[in-house]
Amino acid sequence: LAPAAAVVDISHDVAAHDVRAGSLLLWRTVPWLAPGVALAVVDPGVGTARRAVAVETAHPDGLWLVGPDNGLLGPAVAAAGGPRRAVALVDTDRYRPVPGPWGRTFAGRDLLAPAAALLSRGVDLSELGPPVDASTLVAGTVEDPVLTADGLSCVVLWVDRFGNAQLNAGPADLEALGSELAVTVPGDRPGATRHLPLHRADTYADLAAGVVGIVTDSYGLCALSADRRRAADLLGLRAGDPVLVGRRPSWS
Amino acid sequence: LAPAAAVVDISHDVAAHDVRAGSLLLWRTVPWLAPGVALAVVDPGVGTARRAVAVETAHPDGLWLVGPDNGLLGPAVAAAGGPRRAVALVDTDRYRPVPGPWGRTFAGRDLLAPAAALLSRGVDLSELGPPVDASTLVAGTVEDPVLTADGLSCVVLWVDRFGNAQLNAGPADLEALGSELAVTVPGDRPGATRHLPLHRADTYADLAAGVVGIVTDSYGLCALSADRRRAADLLGLRAGDPVLVGRRPSWS
Amino acid sequence: LAPAAAVVDISHDVAAHDVRAGSLLLWRTVPWLAPGVALAVVDPGVGTARRAVAVETAHPDGLWLVGPDNGLLGPAVAAAGGPRRAVALVDTDRYRPVPGPWGRTFAGRDLLAPAAALLSRGVDLSELGPPVDASTLVAGTVEDPVLTADGLSCVVLWVDRFGNAQLNAGPADLEALGSELAVTVPGDRPGATRHLPLHRADTYADLAAGVVGIVTDSYGLCALSADRRRAADLLGLRAGDPVLVGRRPSWS
Repeated sequence: LAPAAAVVDISHDVAAHDVRAGSLLLWRTVPWLAPGVALAVVDPGVGTARRAVAVETAHPDGLWLVGPDNGLLGPAVAAAGGPRRAVALVDTDRYRPVPGPWGRTFAGRDLLAPAAALLSRGVDLSELGPPVDASTLVAGTVEDPVLTADGLSCVVLWVDRFGNAQLNAGPADLEALGSELAVTVPGDRPGATRHLPLHRADTYADLAAGVVGIVTDSYGLCALSADRRRAADLLGLRAGDPVLVGRRPSWS
Repeated sequence: LAPAAAVVDISHDVAAHDVRAGSLLLWRTVPWLAPGVALAVVDPGVGTARRAVAVETAHPDGLWLVGPDNGLLGPAVAAAGGPRRAVALVDTDRYRPVPGPWGRTFAGRDLLAPAAALLSRGVDLSELGPPVDASTLVAGTVEDPVLTADGLSCVVLWVDRFGNAQLNAGPADLEALGSELAVTVPGDRPGATRHLPLHRADTYADLAAGVVGIVTDSYGLCALSADRRRAADLLGLRAGDPVLVGRRPSWS
Repeated sequence: LAPAAAVVDISHDVAAHDVRAGSLLLWRTVPWLAPGVALAVVDPGVGTARRAVAVETAHPDGLWLVGPDNGLLGPAVAAAGGPRRAVALVDTDRYRPVPGPWGRTFAGRDLLAPAAALLSRGVDLSELGPPVDASTLVAGTVEDPVLTADGLSCVVLWVDRFGNAQLNAGPADLEALGSELAVTVPGDRPGATRHLPLHRADTYADLAAGVVGIVTDSYGLCALSADRRRAADLLGLRAGDPVLVGRRPSWS
């Protein structure tokens, strides 16, 4: 449908059914997506009444997102300036480039990818299906960090392949905490916690061997990192875990 | 040799030496391959007397397959309408774009890929090597299911990354069995079997939690599936395992 | 920056921080890289004073290499005929196609890839940064095998996905050893060794079941191999391990 399209494979490594991880990955890539059409499929509800949608965002360079309306697209749409228009994708026979007795289990191939291909060729969004009220799109959520008397309450968004634990906070969120930091992470037993000093660093190599620090990562977010070690393993952290970044006690 | 070719990577995930798995993967993709040249290499006999071949199929849109003549290509060639012409690829020096003291262990790079590249540029099959009798190509086999008094005797063709177990049967093969189905799979001990009710479903989400059903999958074949669970793990199934789909006993 | 560039993904499978493995992988691909620009990033020192460089090699077909100056590029530069010119890449703001509050942790995206893109468009090396003395580039090393009274002392460069153990020796290096070979590899206990007969073969299938042989591989180097078995597992070998290839004792 679009043989001249330049296809960029952002990732095929999202775990099966993990809509949240997919939505965060897509959200992180928004600064590099426009102009373009982004196809995203993490779709445990394939074939059910969950909507398939194509969304035209307000991104000034032109960015469309295509996928299931299950929260996967929401954070990326918001990061791209919000939705301008949206349509539902319902006409499955129209889109299938290869007619066949296929089942209803692969909308990514049979509906969503063809719609993305048509958009990439310049077909107007309105030609792909009936309009839907953009305010009814499932938002998904990228949680904001919460500043409390104890510190900045964060969540681990992502553990990358080097073991860096990306937080839902940027360097500006840390300003209120001063220069001497500590981190509190879940402990080995339910309800237990571990407290460690947390060193600020510009790069991984600034950290001494085995020391955990906080670095502004390549997405501009704060990450718990270590030099040539997996910080997430040192701290026992996985995506979704709570992390409290606070002032370092004077006795520590 | 063909810098303008659009190269599509179907898969690099076939296990080492698993000619059967490679042949089934290639066979499943035939509806999306034409027009084109498909290069396939699972080649434990590289460098031996096994032939390397290029096959022109009868596919109306134009489909050529290039690979070792060890059964890898057979099912795909059959699905594409059968062979029209075939040649043996033997002139290794001619094909090597980079001359060098390389060994004879990588025909995929040194012989097969160059031949595919030349075909994609429009070079006629006859220029690539001496003709071979297409009836002598190794067929490989995609087994047909067998209807017995006990039910439909199938085999697991493939377990996909979601744990769906694809069978060598389509929905029409199930018609004789009625609407209430059961499945028999190998048990934990040699010779033992397990029997379970088998629910028909259109999509994964139609199945209740932990229940195994039979779905028409995205290739139009029957698959044993579960909602957000790995049906193959629930049933202890791997590719190649036998599966009997039968009528559900009245007492079950 | 270079939308018309044909991008070939050589590998994303080098282990984190393994500069040596990356340098060997890049070195092995040199015969297929020119004309072109090769971008390589294994960069544990990202953000530190280690230099980022772009190197124009003496390869007659035109080959540029871009990456950190930590030894990653050295063997490939040497294999391409040595360096002709080199520049340091220091102007980070100039290169970032997407301005943002990103951290200093991803020079591959923010500095090295943009520089490679500009080179691929024909921008002259001198426009990318200040010249550096090519003789000061970190060489890295591909060790040569050493012929001793006991045999040829080698090292395992690489274990491929089939379990072949590639050595730092070519077939010519074996000529002094005669036709009857044996191999000595590390044993189970520290300081212990294992001795096995080593069969010469042209292809994997020439080897009897379970027998380890030495084959000229697809890079023209000697590899310890077995037919449809992982020779490295049979011998307990990993990349970097020492291997002695010697004459087979008359009593073996």
